[in-house]
Amino acid sequence: MITRIDHIGIAVCSLEKSISYYEQALGLKCEHREVVESQKVSTAFFHAGEVHIELLEPTSPESPIAKFLEKNPAGGVHHIAFATTDLTGQLKQASDAGVKLIHEIPFEGAAGKMVAFLHPKFTHGVLTELCAPKA
Amino acid sequence: MITRIDHIGIAVCSLEKSISYYEQALGLKCEHREVVESQKVSTAFFHAGEVHIELLEPTSPESPIAKFLEKNPAGGVHHIAFATTDLTGQLKQASDAGVKLIHEIPFEGAAGKMVAFLHPKFTHGVLTELCAPKA
Repeated sequence: MITRIDHIGIAVCSLEKSISYYEQALGLKCEHREVVESQKVSTAFFHAGEVHIELLEPTSPESPIAKFLEKNPAGGVHHIAFATTDLTGQLKQASDAGVKLIHEIPFEGAAGKMVAFLHPKFTHGVLTELCAPKA
Repeated sequence: MITRIDHIGIAVCSLEKSISYYEQALGLKCEHREVVESQKVSTAFFHAGEVHIELLEPTSPESPIAKFLEKNPAGGVHHIAFATTDLTGQLKQASDAGVKLIHEIPFEGAAGKMVAFLHPKFTHGVLTELCAPKA
């Protein structure tokens, strides 16, 4: 069962400028910064209530975020991640409903969570991640 | 002060097909449907934890959502709305930080909330709404 939105991943051109916007204009506080080598991104985390906002700046032209920014030069929402109590069951439910899975087997993402993505051709324009704490 | 994300507005080509996806593939429940004449959209609401998901299908080619779909034919995240305890103060903070406001004076949006948008050229790719309960 989906219990909440875990995080919103936002592609940005400049982490520094975007951090400044979220801090100064919106009054949110950057809690954590981390380079994720596997995704070739530099990240910054904020939270608004129970949802984390994850800013993503590519560190290489091969990063999936670099490709997103080629199509969306101003940046924008890259993905939405839903927290579920049962990741395997949630993936089966999506698959049974006709949604192609990018990852049939969840893998370990940031912060010790297990994650999997649904294929964007089946999610009506929103790249969708499902995640759960590692068992 | 921003306390949480109030809702995520998602532009969709077909409300029926998207409702079916959110219900059947993700297991969320459509709580409410409403046509908003002023925005020329037909909407459907879900929630995941404290965040509402607002699906938006245009009812006219003049709808702002129709224009979004011209650029993003598959649909996608149209805006993110943050709930604030002090809408006037929050707008002043954004303005003081150099962000142009679309609405300097908040107006009444859906569900009796007061809302205002920040100018998207200043929000790093994410159309951003601020909202608060009507005083």
